[in-house]
Amino acid sequence: MKLPRYKRDSLVSYTLGATLTYELIKTAPEQITRIFLRPDIEIGHDLSRIISEAKRLKLDIIESQKPFNVLNAKGDCLMIAEFNKHSSELNHREPHVVLVNPSDAGNLGTIMRSAVAFGFKNIAIITPAVDFYAPKTIRASMGAIFHLNVQEFSSIDEYRQQNPERPLYAFMLNSTAQHLAEAAQSAPDNYSLIFGNEAAGLPANYADFCQSVFIPQSQYVDSLNLSIATSIALYSFRQI
Amino acid sequence: MKLPRYKRDSLVSYTLGATLTYELIKTAPEQITRIFLRPDIEIGHDLSRIISEAKRLKLDIIESQKPFNVLNAKGDCLMIAEFNKHSSELNHREPHVVLVNPSDAGNLGTIMRSAVAFGFKNIAIITPAVDFYAPKTIRASMGAIFHLNVQEFSSIDEYRQQNPERPLYAFMLNSTAQHLAEAAQSAPDNYSLIFGNEAAGLPANYADFCQSVFIPQSQYVDSLNLSIATSIALYSFRQI
Repeated sequence: MKLPRYKRDSLVSYTLGATLTYELIKTAPEQITRIFLRPDIEIGHDLSRIISEAKRLKLDIIESQKPFNVLNAKGDCLMIAEFNKHSSELNHREPHVVLVNPSDAGNLGTIMRSAVAFGFKNIAIITPAVDFYAPKTIRASMGAIFHLNVQEFSSIDEYRQQNPERPLYAFMLNSTAQHLAEAAQSAPDNYSLIFGNEAAGLPANYADFCQSVFIPQSQYVDSLNLSIATSIALYSFRQI
Repeated sequence: MKLPRYKRDSLVSYTLGATLTYELIKTAPEQITRIFLRPDIEIGHDLSRIISEAKRLKLDIIESQKPFNVLNAKGDCLMIAEFNKHSSELNHREPHVVLVNPSDAGNLGTIMRSAVAFGFKNIAIITPAVDFYAPKTIRASMGAIFHLNVQEFSSIDEYRQQNPERPLYAFMLNSTAQHLAEAAQSAPDNYSLIFGNEAAGLPANYADFCQSVFIPQSQYVDSLNLSIATSIALYSFRQI
């Protein structure tokens, strides 16, 4: 069985875990190329249900330890799906979440989970950025990634050219920043919420073409964690 | 130099990093027993400023690689403060955040950071729980822990006996749960916000003595990450 290590330019990626795999089976079974099952385990009720569903969909199930070793899947990972990466485009008539140079797979996955929780379906990523299809990102998203359109852009200008005439809200501190609660209350449709990199935040010039927004916070912390700040913003602007 | 590995019952703990150490120097220098500095590094502007401040306060500064090895401090950690753990009691006249059996150091630290950001100064932890003074928790808190009263209780009953007559809000789904926005709007003073364990949530019987509260979310996610859910709740109930 041929199974190279996962790389960013691989055409396939992997769900490391039974729950994640089940999420993919329910959401986009047509993307699945094969399913790997650890050979040495006792099959309990939950796993048995997932296997039945995979068999019903005529998915290829292979018992083998090797993929678990190659993909460095930890002891509690009993099942892996290999699936074709799928390119998707943003829906122009819906709100967008725009992440500028996100660098941490855990943060990106957590933001995806919050986005889906609060009814957002479109995420733009401005590169350079962490690989949104990396198994670690998928795992942190708890499968939320399968409910999202995710599209990469090489710059914010490219994003703006392809997505014109949208109100843009940039989360950053400056003298004209609006309180999150006010911004959320007065938002029209089809807006974009823009968040900077974990360490650097957003460049100051974003204020030239965006309404800047701040999350009120005490002087005793430097900042909020990126996935926390983003989730609070998505909750406030929620679409559900 | 005697330096055992950190354990939960150690009388001292450690700040792994220069920024964290500076936060402790500014907040509670009297707790610091000594400061360790990596011997092999070039001292830049920021580090030099921290060292000056430590010298001004007559803190003991020791150049040695050993503590960095013993404490498994990564390559970018240039400075460590050893400090006496400090027991603190909750303020009865202020709101409390109550965490029931939190199990992840990263989540606990992130919740501390959000608590301080939104003006909460008191955290109750119901044991068994992750060690709130572990270096990993302190690091995830980005120093926020030094601005908090943190007190452990062996059960929710013990917490309630020592903190009677407080409105209790339990974050859980049940048929009588109130929407977060409504609960936050109508909250009186001196309330307690109660959050369950990452995997298990809160036991159903909490609804017998608490107002249950839910965070609205789509059917496409199972739940929010604990630190995300807690931070959204703290933002909504914020004291700033």
